[in-house]
Amino acid sequence: MDYKKLLEIQKDYVINLRRYFHKNPELSWKEFETSRRIKSELENMGIPYIEMAGTGVVATIKGKPTGKIVALRGDIDALEVTEKNEIEYKSQNPKVMHACGHDGHAAMLLGAARALNEIKENIRGTIKLIFQPAEEMVQGAKEMIEEGALEGVDGILGIHLWSGIETGKISVDPGPRMASGDHVKIDIIGKGGHGSMPHQGIDAVVAASSLVMNTQSIMSREVNPLDTVVFTIGEIQSGTRFNVIGGEAHIEGTVRCFDPKTRAILPEIIKRHADNTAKAYRAKAKVQYIEGTPPTINDEKCSSIAEGTVLSMLGEDGLLKMEKTTGSEDMAYYLEKIPGLIAFVGAGNPEKGADFPHHHPRFNIDEDSLAIGTELYFRFAIDFLEKF
Amino acid sequence: MDYKKLLEIQKDYVINLRRYFHKNPELSWKEFETSRRIKSELENMGIPYIEMAGTGVVATIKGKPTGKIVALRGDIDALEVTEKNEIEYKSQNPKVMHACGHDGHAAMLLGAARALNEIKENIRGTIKLIFQPAEEMVQGAKEMIEEGALEGVDGILGIHLWSGIETGKISVDPGPRMASGDHVKIDIIGKGGHGSMPHQGIDAVVAASSLVMNTQSIMSREVNPLDTVVFTIGEIQSGTRFNVIGGEAHIEGTVRCFDPKTRAILPEIIKRHADNTAKAYRAKAKVQYIEGTPPTINDEKCSSIAEGTVLSMLGEDGLLKMEKTTGSEDMAYYLEKIPGLIAFVGAGNPEKGADFPHHHPRFNIDEDSLAIGTELYFRFAIDFLEKF
Amino acid sequence: MDYKKLLEIQKDYVINLRRYFHKNPELSWKEFETSRRIKSELENMGIPYIEMAGTGVVATIKGKPTGKIVALRGDIDALEVTEKNEIEYKSQNPKVMHACGHDGHAAMLLGAARALNEIKENIRGTIKLIFQPAEEMVQGAKEMIEEGALEGVDGILGIHLWSGIETGKISVDPGPRMASGDHVKIDIIGKGGHGSMPHQGIDAVVAASSLVMNTQSIMSREVNPLDTVVFTIGEIQSGTRFNVIGGEAHIEGTVRCFDPKTRAILPEIIKRHADNTAKAYRAKAKVQYIEGTPPTINDEKCSSIAEGTVLSMLGEDGLLKMEKTTGSEDMAYYLEKIPGLIAFVGAGNPEKGADFPHHHPRFNIDEDSLAIGTELYFRFAIDFLEKF
Amino acid sequence: MDYKKLLEIQKDYVINLRRYFHKNPELSWKEFETSRRIKSELENMGIPYIEMAGTGVVATIKGKPTGKIVALRGDIDALEVTEKNEIEYKSQNPKVMHACGHDGHAAMLLGAARALNEIKENIRGTIKLIFQPAEEMVQGAKEMIEEGALEGVDGILGIHLWSGIETGKISVDPGPRMASGDHVKIDIIGKGGHGSMPHQGIDAVVAASSLVMNTQSIMSREVNPLDTVVFTIGEIQSGTRFNVIGGEAHIEGTVRCFDPKTRAILPEIIKRHADNTAKAYRAKAKVQYIEGTPPTINDEKCSSIAEGTVLSMLGEDGLLKMEKTTGSEDMAYYLEKIPGLIAFVGAGNPEKGADFPHHHPRFNIDEDSLAIGTELYFRFAIDFLEKF
Repeated sequence: MDYKKLLEIQKDYVINLRRYFHKNPELSWKEFETSRRIKSELENMGIPYIEMAGTGVVATIKGKPTGKIVALRGDIDALEVTEKNEIEYKSQNPKVMHACGHDGHAAMLLGAARALNEIKENIRGTIKLIFQPAEEMVQGAKEMIEEGALEGVDGILGIHLWSGIETGKISVDPGPRMASGDHVKIDIIGKGGHGSMPHQGIDAVVAASSLVMNTQSIMSREVNPLDTVVFTIGEIQSGTRFNVIGGEAHIEGTVRCFDPKTRAILPEIIKRHADNTAKAYRAKAKVQYIEGTPPTINDEKCSSIAEGTVLSMLGEDGLLKMEKTTGSEDMAYYLEKIPGLIAFVGAGNPEKGADFPHHHPRFNIDEDSLAIGTELYFRFAIDFLEKF
Repeated sequence: MDYKKLLEIQKDYVINLRRYFHKNPELSWKEFETSRRIKSELENMGIPYIEMAGTGVVATIKGKPTGKIVALRGDIDALEVTEKNEIEYKSQNPKVMHACGHDGHAAMLLGAARALNEIKENIRGTIKLIFQPAEEMVQGAKEMIEEGALEGVDGILGIHLWSGIETGKISVDPGPRMASGDHVKIDIIGKGGHGSMPHQGIDAVVAASSLVMNTQSIMSREVNPLDTVVFTIGEIQSGTRFNVIGGEAHIEGTVRCFDPKTRAILPEIIKRHADNTAKAYRAKAKVQYIEGTPPTINDEKCSSIAEGTVLSMLGEDGLLKMEKTTGSEDMAYYLEKIPGLIAFVGAGNPEKGADFPHHHPRFNIDEDSLAIGTELYFRFAIDFLEKF
Repeated sequence: MDYKKLLEIQKDYVINLRRYFHKNPELSWKEFETSRRIKSELENMGIPYIEMAGTGVVATIKGKPTGKIVALRGDIDALEVTEKNEIEYKSQNPKVMHACGHDGHAAMLLGAARALNEIKENIRGTIKLIFQPAEEMVQGAKEMIEEGALEGVDGILGIHLWSGIETGKISVDPGPRMASGDHVKIDIIGKGGHGSMPHQGIDAVVAASSLVMNTQSIMSREVNPLDTVVFTIGEIQSGTRFNVIGGEAHIEGTVRCFDPKTRAILPEIIKRHADNTAKAYRAKAKVQYIEGTPPTINDEKCSSIAEGTVLSMLGEDGLLKMEKTTGSEDMAYYLEKIPGLIAFVGAGNPEKGADFPHHHPRFNIDEDSLAIGTELYFRFAIDFLEKF
Repeated sequence: MDYKKLLEIQKDYVINLRRYFHKNPELSWKEFETSRRIKSELENMGIPYIEMAGTGVVATIKGKPTGKIVALRGDIDALEVTEKNEIEYKSQNPKVMHACGHDGHAAMLLGAARALNEIKENIRGTIKLIFQPAEEMVQGAKEMIEEGALEGVDGILGIHLWSGIETGKISVDPGPRMASGDHVKIDIIGKGGHGSMPHQGIDAVVAASSLVMNTQSIMSREVNPLDTVVFTIGEIQSGTRFNVIGGEAHIEGTVRCFDPKTRAILPEIIKRHADNTAKAYRAKAKVQYIEGTPPTINDEKCSSIAEGTVLSMLGEDGLLKMEKTTGSEDMAYYLEKIPGLIAFVGAGNPEKGADFPHHHPRFNIDEDSLAIGTELYFRFAIDFLEKF
């Protein structure tokens, strides 16, 4: 069968589904109706699935039995944002909105599933469709993996519709694409006392301030300047009254980087600064380093396959080289386990008002991007099973 | 009449009054019953008085019309402390306690008034008795002065019973005795943003930390090392979420010193550090410098007169040279206007359990100190009018 | 004529020349004998040249008159290093050594010239051979450009033999390859005085230390974390005697980055920190920002042409993707003016002892790299004139 | 004999001697001619003496055998200053000048000796005259004590002529008068490296700057604000080239305080800051704390005796209450061992040009102060032996 025709057929189906999801957004781990609709669609197609991680769904399309297994992942949750778009399919759930494009991801994955299912006899291997909840809390992927979503899978593609890229362009660059996102909590334990007698206390305000200053040099002096690291101390809190010495200080921050080796040494570096700065001031430091999302790193070979897919779809003009970003994405967890990639599919179009940043109350996508994303899911699955 | 006998008579009167006040403590600006009792005692003595600043009382004993006017000041308010002493006259007002000795001050001043009134014909001048409310909020003195308590007054004595000095010793040292207490609020205005993109924000956490570090050098480099200055930053607060750049930081602190000239330049010094440190970081600083109590400075001549009084009462052994303290006292406001002194009268006695610090739930005075304080009020008034 | 054969012929010629240059190294701007030998070789070949910038030489090989002009650049100076290699052609000039491979650059460029000259009738355009002095002082390129070396030139290739890459591999990656290298001098003007009286002076030691701390945040907070910036303060000097307040402090540092836009804003950022930190401490700052080498940025199209050249020479295995480095190279000046690239040609081989870092007394190259570099000069010239 | 007359006689003698010393100044430990002249004068008076510490002299005047022993100390060395006064007795030794009044000290002590020797039969005890070398290097007193200058001595008076006090006033205040003067050297050991690769080195410049900032809080937070401490870091030196990471940093400073207990804890506090700040930055710190002069503390009782002496000489107007100073004086070593005091004798008189600070090339004293200082030595010796 002609792929072009086959994909043409899915267009309206995907748009309608996406609008349905958009109108009925659900928060992380609460994607009950979304999940129900996905399963109902899969049933209509006759594609078998299993439930996972509460609201997650993993469906399987078996082609020729001798091939490999490729997974296609779409995340399905919405955000706590109040939509300000005036559109027919505006969110009907108060304070909840698909402001990050996951409505599109779920719809495109269903469209691709329908097309792939039609031609499964010709496909050299098996396709797993991973409908993943709770990406916005960067928890869903981890949970899905723990429950077996990647069992036997050889490679994976995740798609992110991106309003910062114009429709018609796709980035599938290899290597680090998004940063890790870890969480640090530091308590400086000094000793309170009356503000008029500093020598009788141990001032946690000053010790914590010195620590903030000292840690700036992690970025400027300790890590390779070619290797991006961000350590933002988002919170500092100490003291309860202006004339009482702050006996304790609390600092919290986020740590981001792209290289797993760098990420591995940062907890020790931060702890070294905290412990010794505190000691210089007669205080003590308690450091909690809470690992979050790993860096999202595209596999060279999978990126190369995807590059071929994109060139075949859109030609040279469609292939965008894009700088990595310091944001995080729980796609990272899959890519830690198996080769694969996240592709950024352009969905921006100022003329259609689709140029607001993600998470904005007026975020929207150019719906022309839906056909492109559907095709990428569809063709990459086939290409991967042929070439990997 | 023999002064010794005259004072002997007041002893029980003062102890009983002090116990009454102790049992019925009242918070600042709410000394209604305390004020009522003082007025009733004055009426019994036939001493005229006027009311002032709500609960304040100023009584006048006129001696020979040609002399000067000396004021004796006793503060009368209690604290928000729950008494833990097991004594017969324990506080009956929940969560309120005379934990700073003001019960004794009021009682001693009434005792001295009764004795002075007996001999007024022999006194060379006029005595004003200032019963002052709201010392604990360091507000009462200022209010009393504004309403005229010092009109025509040539000199003033305030007494503080002091558990840190043993009973039988008195400090009347000249010069600075207690520190000024000012209040500084600084806001650093940066610009928030996502923690992964520091360059798009202006990080108030780092700017504020640099400011904290820079201001330490005020004490170490900018003021005369022989001139005590304390700048305690009791509070630093910035940021609301660990992974969001803190767009604003709030700092509050207390500034203390002993020299009015130094005090006069500190606001400018702190403002210079705040403004320029903020600018270095592309941020802005808003500095609020709220003047509080001035330093409490004993007049040389009045101290010298009081030294004579103490020597005549207690001999060389009774005269204590005591280091100044970085705490504050609103007696400072009177001493800004007219010559005078605050005397620290020993009321400590470990054997009687009178050795807890002021403001402690088990604070108490050695009641033997009451006769000494009464005598100091009495004799200083006479000595001042003779010698000043 | 067969290119392979033609290049084969140059091999020994290039090795011998390189050894001659190695044995007779000369410092920047003093490459008199080196220049003389180059000119003599060119004369032997019958290639016309002009002298430039003292010891520089620009030769011209004219092919078909209708084509473009491509430049091949080789730098020719040595370093103030005492060679510790025990080799037959060891440096005979005391304290001077070709410890960076420029001996090879000059030799390869002469070899390529000889080969290109043989086939000039077939070449579609003109080739300029730039023998550049004083690269080690990052001055030669600037001077050569000012004297007209790039006049009419459409594109340029510079080669750097690199001991950190194994022989047989070449990096011709597009985009930023080496960092800019600027020089900052900051004077903090305070006021000296006796160390026992800090308040009578303005302590430049503390102000300068605060400045050092504050500037760390340029890297951690002010520039895009994806955009590499290095600000190393290599020197801090203040004070002359331990017990005298340092009235002035002197700071010097190097600033490196890859993006011209970032480079353009750094002087202002550093000046802002210096001025305002100084002001916070009542001091003044004088900032001198001395522009040095720009970032070395390979042109996309030229890199792409060179990639083709390398693939044709060495196949996929020979094409190395290499991270950029924070070092500087005055090739940058040419690339600021016209499209082109610097290629890093592998010359490392541990088995031959060719694995010491550049500028090391035991630095040496694997001489097998010379034929590769000669071929790259030769083939790129032809490819560029065909394809650009 | 009448003391007044007796002292009157010495006036010209003392002035002439002082001018002789002024004209022939000698540096510390090189007071050969000065010492010779002192000995010759003592021989003329018939006062026995012994030599000590090279150029020091200790003479003894024995009165009644039953009494105590009092020492009078005068220091005798000059400074490396080129005199700029145009006076008849201007320094004849190039680059050496009596710019601190020691010429007067030596002369006054000889004058007092001559007068005391006349009346020795009436003196209740023994007087030792200590002519001490090398005060300017704060070494002489220590050496003299080690060689036995204080053996058997019960009390001591040192005099400092002071241009900052007007002639006719003397300060003999009890307690701390001058600060201790210790010397701290800190080396921060990091690791050098190329300035473009900060992560490969350990930057001693940044670590040292952080240490400078952290130590400011010693004064602001760690010591009692009522207790003066000065820590001036007079020197910071790190790095040799702007683009090379400073592998080591060197810091030197002076530490001054008045309370021996505080002085005892400061080395540990500074070491704690240095060690832990260095550790925070992966560096090491070497701290050398070199004890210098102790604080100069006047004994209460000796001060009180001297107060009596001054009152008898000059009346109330002559007794100056003077704040202590953060300068140092090696008189401290004597006062560490035995009771005594240093008296500051006014020698300032703007009308006579005697108002330049000590150590200034135009420093001079009002010679009227010489008679006053001579009398103080003379009378204090008698008063001490009567009253102590």
